[in-house]
Amino acid sequence: MNPIKVMVNGLPGNMSTQAAEHIVEDSGLELIPYALTGPEIEATETKIGPEVVRLIKPEERQQMIESIKGAEGMVICVDYTHPSAVNDNASFYCENGLPFVMGTTGGDRTNLVETVAKSDIAAVIAPNMGKQIVAFQAMMEYAAETFPDVFKGYGLEVKESHQQGKADTSGTAKAMIGYFNRLGIPFAKDQIRMERDPEVQRSEWGVPQEYLSGHGWHTYSLLSEDNTVFFQFTHNVNGRDIYAKGTVDAIHYLAQKIDQAAKGRVFTMIDVLKGT
Amino acid sequence: MNPIKVMVNGLPGNMSTQAAEHIVEDSGLELIPYALTGPEIEATETKIGPEVVRLIKPEERQQMIESIKGAEGMVICVDYTHPSAVNDNASFYCENGLPFVMGTTGGDRTNLVETVAKSDIAAVIAPNMGKQIVAFQAMMEYAAETFPDVFKGYGLEVKESHQQGKADTSGTAKAMIGYFNRLGIPFAKDQIRMERDPEVQRSEWGVPQEYLSGHGWHTYSLLSEDNTVFFQFTHNVNGRDIYAKGTVDAIHYLAQKIDQAAKGRVFTMIDVLKGT
Repeated sequence: MNPIKVMVNGLPGNMSTQAAEHIVEDSGLELIPYALTGPEIEATETKIGPEVVRLIKPEERQQMIESIKGAEGMVICVDYTHPSAVNDNASFYCENGLPFVMGTTGGDRTNLVETVAKSDIAAVIAPNMGKQIVAFQAMMEYAAETFPDVFKGYGLEVKESHQQGKADTSGTAKAMIGYFNRLGIPFAKDQIRMERDPEVQRSEWGVPQEYLSGHGWHTYSLLSEDNTVFFQFTHNVNGRDIYAKGTVDAIHYLAQKIDQAAKGRVFTMIDVLKGT
Repeated sequence: MNPIKVMVNGLPGNMSTQAAEHIVEDSGLELIPYALTGPEIEATETKIGPEVVRLIKPEERQQMIESIKGAEGMVICVDYTHPSAVNDNASFYCENGLPFVMGTTGGDRTNLVETVAKSDIAAVIAPNMGKQIVAFQAMMEYAAETFPDVFKGYGLEVKESHQQGKADTSGTAKAMIGYFNRLGIPFAKDQIRMERDPEVQRSEWGVPQEYLSGHGWHTYSLLSEDNTVFFQFTHNVNGRDIYAKGTVDAIHYLAQKIDQAAKGRVFTMIDVLKGT
């Protein structure tokens, strides 16, 4: 079987670079030496392992993509660009018959889904590519739907730690609060305890030095009213490897869906997890 | 509305006593002053809060139950007796039109279900009455069914601590191992780390002194192959309050089902949790 050709857009940037590195290492995938990038990028090429990838500016992308498609045939795009580029990129992929895996967050998400639905292409749209994290969120959603109020009377404490640059509260933690609310525990999003101080993260939380600049740690603690029952759920992610791995899985899933002639379909990470 | 009359069988014993105490405190329930007990019990009565409960020996139970039913009308039985009594008690309840909540473990479980199915009564059969624990197990089962192998490549560590008297490995931990296996992690039941030493429980685990004689603590830790992702799930139960509370909920649920004319039906704690 020929490897699936993949173009990773957004380079040079942390997450897209990491995803590209995993794609290069996957024998079923082939990274093509081109990448769409933003107007602010001055470099004209970047290296992914041994490969030199040519960076394509927005103004030349239409012309370039036609010659790339001519040379490569079917190409799946991976998008780790910028929230402001999400909708324009999705339109570009759809108009040019490029199925895509969208890992970029932000933009107009409703419009994003509609753009794909109206098109002839299929896409995986996943603001969180961390398969195990997504699975745990799905477990919580299942519980909230199936057993409302089962934790009624319990107290909740939520704490999360992320690299100093992250200004906002963890989106995952906020989503989890919604589930805990439905499970019977009143809790406001501003009660989440955020930690952004690297010194505290290292000394009190035990975040390894090398991951102070990139981690997402979350702990949810539940205590019954009479203090006799205690639950605790923790998910600690260091670096971005989990997301790069999930991206690779999403590409394989999308390729399979394309083989099955999926058109105008949006898949989520839950679909990728289910594998159906 | 008249309170639901409840007979708690198995007294005097730890779990049945605790369940009876919660029943006395629940304004919607009324503990009747009789209890079926085993042949080994020499006492003829026991106190539950302010109430004196007469203990009925097996040889007098048939005659007594007829007069109790005559005086009290509809009575729901709660069974926290002994594994060896499970099937005989169930037959007795079924033959005498006594809906029941079976919290006793062991016995022939298939036969137990069949006995109810063939009868005119309804029952809640729940080897674990801890609602939140059951909910968490259901979450794990959902994940195992929906996302098989999502934790493939992860390492697992399972540790549990129970009072010194408990010889066997935690049944809950063993059930959880089954889910983790289906989630992609090979792990044998004998790899579960059991702690039964009160000194270690107190000093290393932090089990409160008063609960050294009765607790069930479980922690499951998952680490990705590259060590970058760590999950941990903990559920620590001190004493038996959680089970007594679940028993009360199961009684209310069963009473509601009886109002809806349920006959020959077996309900589980999952049904109680769903409340449907």
